[in-house]
Amino acid sequence: MAPAVHPSSSSCLTSEADEKYANVNWEELGFTLIPTDYMYVAKCKQGESFSEGKIVPYGDISISPSAGILNYGQGLFEGLKAYRTQMGRITLFRPEQNALRMQMGADRLCMTPPSVDQFVDAVKQTVIANKKWVPPSGKGALYIRPLLIGSGAVLGIASAPEFTFLVYVSPVGNYHKVSSGLNLKVDHTYRRAHTGGTGGVKSCTNYSPVVKSLREAKSAGFSDVLFLDAATGRNIEEVSTCNIFIVKGNIVSTPPTSGTILPGITRKSISELARDIGYRVQERDVSVDELLEAEEVFCTGTAVVVRAVESVTFYDTKIKYITGEKALSTKLHVMLTNIQMGVVEDTKGWMVEINDTIG
Amino acid sequence: MAPAVHPSSSSCLTSEADEKYANVNWEELGFTLIPTDYMYVAKCKQGESFSEGKIVPYGDISISPSAGILNYGQGLFEGLKAYRTQMGRITLFRPEQNALRMQMGADRLCMTPPSVDQFVDAVKQTVIANKKWVPPSGKGALYIRPLLIGSGAVLGIASAPEFTFLVYVSPVGNYHKVSSGLNLKVDHTYRRAHTGGTGGVKSCTNYSPVVKSLREAKSAGFSDVLFLDAATGRNIEEVSTCNIFIVKGNIVSTPPTSGTILPGITRKSISELARDIGYRVQERDVSVDELLEAEEVFCTGTAVVVRAVESVTFYDTKIKYITGEKALSTKLHVMLTNIQMGVVEDTKGWMVEINDTIG
Ligand SMILES: Cc1ncc(COP(=O)(O)O)c(C=O)c1O
Ligand SMILES: Cc1ncc(COP(=O)(O)O)c(C=O)c1O
Repeated sequence: MAPAVHPSSSSCLTSEADEKYANVNWEELGFTLIPTDYMYVAKCKQGESFSEGKIVPYGDISISPSAGILNYGQGLFEGLKAYRTQMGRITLFRPEQNALRMQMGADRLCMTPPSVDQFVDAVKQTVIANKKWVPPSGKGALYIRPLLIGSGAVLGIASAPEFTFLVYVSPVGNYHKVSSGLNLKVDHTYRRAHTGGTGGVKSCTNYSPVVKSLREAKSAGFSDVLFLDAATGRNIEEVSTCNIFIVKGNIVSTPPTSGTILPGITRKSISELARDIGYRVQERDVSVDELLEAEEVFCTGTAVVVRAVESVTFYDTKIKYITGEKALSTKLHVMLTNIQMGVVEDTKGWMVEINDTIG
Repeated sequence: MAPAVHPSSSSCLTSEADEKYANVNWEELGFTLIPTDYMYVAKCKQGESFSEGKIVPYGDISISPSAGILNYGQGLFEGLKAYRTQMGRITLFRPEQNALRMQMGADRLCMTPPSVDQFVDAVKQTVIANKKWVPPSGKGALYIRPLLIGSGAVLGIASAPEFTFLVYVSPVGNYHKVSSGLNLKVDHTYRRAHTGGTGGVKSCTNYSPVVKSLREAKSAGFSDVLFLDAATGRNIEEVSTCNIFIVKGNIVSTPPTSGTILPGITRKSISELARDIGYRVQERDVSVDELLEAEEVFCTGTAVVVRAVESVTFYDTKIKYITGEKALSTKLHVMLTNIQMGVVEDTKGWMVEINDTIG
């Protein structure tokens, strides 16, 4: 029933960690999986709590065909990054926020989550074990994917009797292939989430349903899809894997996190940075009409960081927005990445340093 | 990346099949997993089609931690039953309907489905391999669970590069523990599906989101949950794993399959049987008000077959309905199970016999 894992060998860990970098072409990083050396696995029975997991070689897991995740979509994921600063330190961006978001999701899907400390510790251990896969400063980041899945077998619809918490990583560069702004299509057929559903948590169930919309948009030349609310179809919600902001004058607006959009950690951080430089940030319903009248539009997320939107297409209307040097998103991107890359002092206490002696 | 399977041993198959029944207490069957001897596994790369799969020993599969099913919920399931008739034949109920429904779901989730013939053949092979697990006539049925999952590894949101089609089985009795009618709670907080989502296909993404609602209702003493439509919250949709009908006079009404409820095969068959005996069957929006004024309410599904609803609770209102001998649902239950168990002639061509020489 349970994913079978092999015990880790710490001598092997040490010797491999001696080489500074893995054999990767760092100039060509995109957002595709590059398997690394190790992953973290912990298990927990329903009604109990997670005990210490293990660093094991990265590879296939063994799971029951009747597992909750395979049959009923009982799974959550997270996404965060480890950065190599210019001074060579390895850091994480607000990992406790991802831990807390996984706890909210676990409550929604009736799963047992790891504690915040367990989560952060597992992430750190996984990064240290895969240290040589953290790209050189400025070339990308190590994307970290924590998973919490119902791994126990169930037949009738119910929570699985066993959960597995797993962390794997992959070095990544840009999420979208284009280097300029995004060209978004407003989807007027598919909806992502509804009130009373799971749109507000990072449940696996929110993702396969958007693949079709994304595929159709990409084959028509768009970078990504912007979803409208399921209730009225009048307000914008978010893009397949990032949150959205519109800018008009001194006001920056973004849809509220009232259960149908993901409470992005980048969204929250960028809102704070925009306020710091004197913008008014409003979390409120944003209609399609307002979107079409905005001066600037941008997206935020761990994978995309801060990305300007170059155009939005709604039926036959295509609107272009400010991008490039004059755009607020460019300024916010610099502010955020300067903190993440250790270029400026982290006065907010957002960065967590990974200390090699942990794990 | 791909689930690893062991080659089947046909000599072993034959010798085990010699004993007529597995060692199961047939009187105590519920709806929990009883692992059997064999399962069916086939694989297919994206852009290709499924070739012949294999019967292998039932057991854990090996899968990439980055598989589409584990990260993004890219999975569909089906549910059907094999029956042992009074004459000892083993039959299936409309399996091609499940195959077609899997194809609709695969289209929605951008997956490659098996062909109808492959699906039905795989189901037959799996039942034959597990023949001794088909309960004695009248004691239950062999529940068959076909799965189609994104088994290939992906990092960005996209369809997986490989799909796995897997069929496993478990002997089952009653889905709900009670033997009388169901006591349903109308959920006024959680919603199951929205227009533009995946509610109309048997996607794994529709199930973990209902576990919380179900758990709350069960701990308050209800048998199951009845969901309302996400758009208005005024109309009834379906129960967590079955469709719903209301009866008033000569009219039997059930919500339409317009994308937010599962097009149940039992629903379709029961509609036909009700028409056969002179009822008018209407597929249309059914409001909560109408539900509360109905004379009789019942549910249909592969797992529940046809089950009378004894009561519905909406906030503080609890309504009771006709159950027992006078109920239409009792009549329809007999009509359907008589066909399924071979007690009456199958004039509709619904039953498919499993011929031992197949596979
Ligand atoms: C649907 C969705 N919205 C928004 C985000 C952005 O969240 P965060 O900034 O925490 O990465 C993500 C991805 O992480 C996402 O999947
Ligand atoms: C949500 C839901 N509705 C209805 C049904 C009934 O469909 P069928 O009669 O094909 O089993 C099922 C289960 O199969 C289901 O999961």
